Amino acid sequence: MKKLFFTSLLLVGLSGTMCPAQTAAVIEDFKPSTKNQPGRDYPMVNSQGYARFRIAAPEAQSVVVSLGLGGQRGGTVLEKDAEGVWTGTTAGPMDEGFHYYHVTIDGGVFNDPGTLNYYGSTRWESGIEIPARDQDFYALRNVPHGNVVQILFPSPSTGTSRRAFVYTPPGYDANQSKRYPVLYLQHGWGEDETAWSNQGHANLIMDNMIAEGKIQPFMIVMTYGMTNDIRPGGGGGMRNFQIDPFETVLLKELIPYVDANFRTLTDINNRAMAGLSMGGMETKTISLHNPGVFAYYGLLSGGTYSPEDLQGRSQVKLVFMSSGSKERPEGVINAEKALKEAGFNAVSYVSEGTAHEFQTWRRSLYRMAPLLFK
Amino acid sequence: MKKLFFTSLLLVGLSGTMCPAQTAAVIEDFKPSTKNQPGRDYPMVNSQGYARFRIAAPEAQSVVVSLGLGGQRGGTVLEKDAEGVWTGTTAGPMDEGFHYYHVTIDGGVFNDPGTLNYYGSTRWESGIEIPARDQDFYALRNVPHGNVVQILFPSPSTGTSRRAFVYTPPGYDANQSKRYPVLYLQHGWGEDETAWSNQGHANLIMDNMIAEGKIQPFMIVMTYGMTNDIRPGGGGGMRNFQIDPFETVLLKELIPYVDANFRTLTDINNRAMAGLSMGGMETKTISLHNPGVFAYYGLLSGGTYSPEDLQGRSQVKLVFMSSGSKERPEGVINAEKALKEAGFNAVSYVSEGTAHEFQTWRRSLYRMAPLLFK
Repeated sequence: MKKLFFTSLLLVGLSGTMCPAQTAAVIEDFKPSTKNQPGRDYPMVNSQGYARFRIAAPEAQSVVVSLGLGGQRGGTVLEKDAEGVWTGTTAGPMDEGFHYYHVTIDGGVFNDPGTLNYYGSTRWESGIEIPARDQDFYALRNVPHGNVVQILFPSPSTGTSRRAFVYTPPGYDANQSKRYPVLYLQHGWGEDETAWSNQGHANLIMDNMIAEGKIQPFMIVMTYGMTNDIRPGGGGGMRNFQIDPFETVLLKELIPYVDANFRTLTDINNRAMAGLSMGGMETKTISLHNPGVFAYYGLLSGGTYSPEDLQGRSQVKLVFMSSGSKERPEGVINAEKALKEAGFNAVSYVSEGTAHEFQTWRRSLYRMAPLLFK
Repeated sequence: MKKLFFTSLLLVGLSGTMCPAQTAAVIEDFKPSTKNQPGRDYPMVNSQGYARFRIAAPEAQSVVVSLGLGGQRGGTVLEKDAEGVWTGTTAGPMDEGFHYYHVTIDGGVFNDPGTLNYYGSTRWESGIEIPARDQDFYALRNVPHGNVVQILFPSPSTGTSRRAFVYTPPGYDANQSKRYPVLYLQHGWGEDETAWSNQGHANLIMDNMIAEGKIQPFMIVMTYGMTNDIRPGGGGGMRNFQIDPFETVLLKELIPYVDANFRTLTDINNRAMAGLSMGGMETKTISLHNPGVFAYYGLLSGGTYSPEDLQGRSQVKLVFMSSGSKERPEGVINAEKALKEAGFNAVSYVSEGTAHEFQTWRRSLYRMAPLLFK
């Protein structure tokens, strides 16, 4: 998806920097990134959004971090100190929120031993968190917490048991008679079913909104959307992507399993589908193929619907389309206008100061959730 | 725990090799390790248990894998080929099962980009799986699967929400009136609440035993047992370990939360506690401090109980003690004998051909589970 449709966005997304900021004075209030491994001090971030890296490799010839000056187009070149420890600071502040990165050591690609890993770009990458002004909405707060349930559901069409994660809201176990609406929420290209919880903090976003009374509790189901193997060695890439295998898994296997094993509401008005980037493309394709399944559609940095796409779709309750301001926000703004003129309940959202990255999608979920299941 | 009590075992554990095997002919039937990242071919393992590593780092001076000749005492030194790719094969077959390892590149410690990471030694380490003759008991099979539920429970004593994982057996959601016994199962030093599911496959072991009718369904609760921070930067180490903070979290916070939010049986005869290595030490200490909470005790490579320890404990239904044959198995064998003579229902188990590693503990859970909640 990124490769085919988001090339320019992808580069912005990878760069994750606000330019030009190279001339700003760097404030020395660096703290460990919240995505660090337990007890690790580096990488650090400061109040301006600069990131500082520190990696020990005494005999290395070169250590380059893929973040800071445009991802694969440069990154941050670390320099070796007297103790053989390589250190460096980004040339400018990074965008707020989560960024993937890796470290190139003597020509080999590795992860930063200081950070936790997150599945993106079809590999487990290092992650760093730049504190955001609005970070409280996805923070771990002292409120009742829902669960994230790992399920292994039978998938005859792919000949295995497949994994999904199901967010159940606080009170799910206590209210044995209550049934809940369900949002089916997809990750992007190169990510997997762990992304929305690990990188997106979808469960904490829900816990916080429910605690504040901003939404009625609902469930979220997250599974792997790249059933045709487009990973390294998987022989493919997006150009060979076929939606059919995933559409079968989702509609014929996952949804029936979730409805049979959780207390869900199963009518169209209590089912939503949304996805980020490639997951938006999947949402659009599957929602158009299957008019009777979902009444709420969400495309997060994942394209738009036109009035022609939705012609005669009187059952559509909401079309939510979002974008980072550093992507091409006019796309979702224009699509909202056209859909409204055609009589649809369309809402667009633009995340200020963010690109094709998870801060855009955390904020998009936060804006979309109150509009679902009305 | 390892540091204080298992130094010799630890070295055996880290080495993970059966010696002398250096002279055996290596059979060229290498396949990707089942713990590899999606689509990655290396590391590979062969039918004899040899491991082969392949890591790209064209300008590196030295690449050494910590596995193969005694962990930190040597490991496997990789050699660079014409394309700048470093490759090497262990000098001998590895023990069956899961091993942690890391890669030292030009003096810096990193993970193998080919594998998934597992939390051990207080860091996310690379993992490799050597196929075991008995691997079917922890394989992902086409049977009904239980769930692994991530909960975030309030912990006033530590001032935060803490994470635990709760295994619920197949049928838990369907049988809304049924209540289940609970095993509280602890990880070892340097590991965390993810270990028993990720490295141990505890959920798959349970799914398979339940499908075969070998056990009655019960729940397993896994949480972090090192509440006093003994991690790098945490200022501590085992010599400063205090059980009290964890005992408070477990008994005053976690168990009440689980009993309030899951359909558990809450009497002593439906509660067990077990742990591996340091988790065994925690199990012994907490079970002796709190006679009325658990009726089933399990120490997996985690020490022994003496008849004096259990004097007057008529409510103890089972004492299970296990060890790898490459640890000091006589300890658990002698303890079983002494406890039986004192009239206790004691069972020892020795895992053949394994050391202080997860294959010992997977097998121990498999042997212990049918003896619980009788």
